[in-house]
Amino acid sequence: MDLIIFVIADYVGTFAFAISGAVAAQQRRLDIFGIMVIAFATACTGGVIRDLCINEPPVGLSNWYYLALSMLAVFACIAAHRWIERLTYPVLFFDAIGLGFFSVFGAHKTWLATQNIEMAVLLGMATAVGGGMVRDVLLNRVPVILRKEIYATAALVGAGLQVLGDKLDWPLPVTASIAIVTCMLIRLLSLRFDWRLPLFSGTE
Amino acid sequence: MDLIIFVIADYVGTFAFAISGAVAAQQRRLDIFGIMVIAFATACTGGVIRDLCINEPPVGLSNWYYLALSMLAVFACIAAHRWIERLTYPVLFFDAIGLGFFSVFGAHKTWLATQNIEMAVLLGMATAVGGGMVRDVLLNRVPVILRKEIYATAALVGAGLQVLGDKLDWPLPVTASIAIVTCMLIRLLSLRFDWRLPLFSGTE
Amino acid sequence: MDLIIFVIADYVGTFAFAISGAVAAQQRRLDIFGIMVIAFATACTGGVIRDLCINEPPVGLSNWYYLALSMLAVFACIAAHRWIERLTYPVLFFDAIGLGFFSVFGAHKTWLATQNIEMAVLLGMATAVGGGMVRDVLLNRVPVILRKEIYATAALVGAGLQVLGDKLDWPLPVTASIAIVTCMLIRLLSLRFDWRLPLFSGTE
Repeated sequence: MDLIIFVIADYVGTFAFAISGAVAAQQRRLDIFGIMVIAFATACTGGVIRDLCINEPPVGLSNWYYLALSMLAVFACIAAHRWIERLTYPVLFFDAIGLGFFSVFGAHKTWLATQNIEMAVLLGMATAVGGGMVRDVLLNRVPVILRKEIYATAALVGAGLQVLGDKLDWPLPVTASIAIVTCMLIRLLSLRFDWRLPLFSGTE
Repeated sequence: MDLIIFVIADYVGTFAFAISGAVAAQQRRLDIFGIMVIAFATACTGGVIRDLCINEPPVGLSNWYYLALSMLAVFACIAAHRWIERLTYPVLFFDAIGLGFFSVFGAHKTWLATQNIEMAVLLGMATAVGGGMVRDVLLNRVPVILRKEIYATAALVGAGLQVLGDKLDWPLPVTASIAIVTCMLIRLLSLRFDWRLPLFSGTE
Repeated sequence: MDLIIFVIADYVGTFAFAISGAVAAQQRRLDIFGIMVIAFATACTGGVIRDLCINEPPVGLSNWYYLALSMLAVFACIAAHRWIERLTYPVLFFDAIGLGFFSVFGAHKTWLATQNIEMAVLLGMATAVGGGMVRDVLLNRVPVILRKEIYATAALVGAGLQVLGDKLDWPLPVTASIAIVTCMLIRLLSLRFDWRLPLFSGTE
């Protein structure tokens, strides 16, 4: 049961990030194979970095499910691109879904591997944030970290809640649901209502 | 015999990517040491990522041959820069040679280490594509993945042919030659005749 | 005694790079959490790459001292930003301090783990140069490697001196001090007096 929840979290996150990468690559007018490469890189980079840091084989590369899910996301995007465009911010919307699922999955996987609270929180955040960073750097877009809304903070909250639940032995389905929903809500509400963290600019 | 062929493939790929990096760095007017750093990073990054993912020590850093080859490429470039400029697209030309040799070498090395078809194809492609990506990101150039011609597709075909041959136990010299030549031809012909994959743009 | 010197070198380097990242992020007007992420990424990326390449657990993530030092640097920056601005080039100044300490610490740690001269020099340089590269790529700044002054050369000299001392069994405090000071002086003097390495441009 616990296992199923986390496998689902990982696959939903992969699919959502692959969609966000595919849409962003379409908007830059890449060809079909370029779209596939960007979608897969967005979906897998965060997890590969996490797996390298906890010294496990990178499942994003060795398990074909991730590649298949990314390709499915690309075809869904191409088929549905008229519909996807009606969402005002499709890249940001799917990115937010991926952020929630990946921060929680990454934190839990790292916790199981290391039992180290700080590492679990940091690598949960890195799993969630890594894909979007690589997508934006490869596509020459302004990296998400530079935009004004709350982004990495939401991933930190999701990863932190999950590790808190793991540490206190809360039931996994409860912890994971709360953490995923909280992270996604923070991110989506910050986009909707233009929430911002305080600035401390040195060049005003 | 098999070993010799692959050592040669690795060294030729290293030299070709180092040249492409050195020429690109010269064009950005970097100083002599900056040229060396970019040439070495272009030649080694793909292989280091591959070695980290298959949990082997990164030979690009531990074996001095790679560094020596990169430096040789830098000096060849500086000595011959008048001649190199007569080639219309020197960066792209040497990049294509490196692409062929590295996709095949990376796929074969990963296959020997993991016997995993998907991982061998993906890491073959990553070995070939990684260096050019890092070169373009560090030099603030438009990443190769954004350009309109066929790039990662050619690396995929090279890596795929090599893994097919490995799986079916074809003689190694035959497989490797076919795979390298096919990959280079696809890339060079796509540059020459402006071949493109279909677009599915969402913003037309 | 030897241990203490190197722990100090690592912590001073971490703190200095975190400051350089925090100031650069402030100048791009990032929010408070974005500043924290960039400061931590600048301070830790070089060391994480080094630790992955020598197959040790990445201490930057597992030891909370690094995170605490980075946060301390962020708060120091926010508190003191009026004072920091009076330094003409605060990012470059703290970057130079980090460069000296990290090139020497990275070279020594790699030497202890591998006894491989080339790897120790290269990973010492990578430890020192990696953080600044990631900072500039994530902040969409011109990467340090593209600027005209001496940068990676200084890190190479620092790492090279340290490995030379390690190889010849010089007393560690002497080697480390000479190497750190030499690296920092080369970098700061090259900024002050606009020292440059020769160009070999192909597009004059």
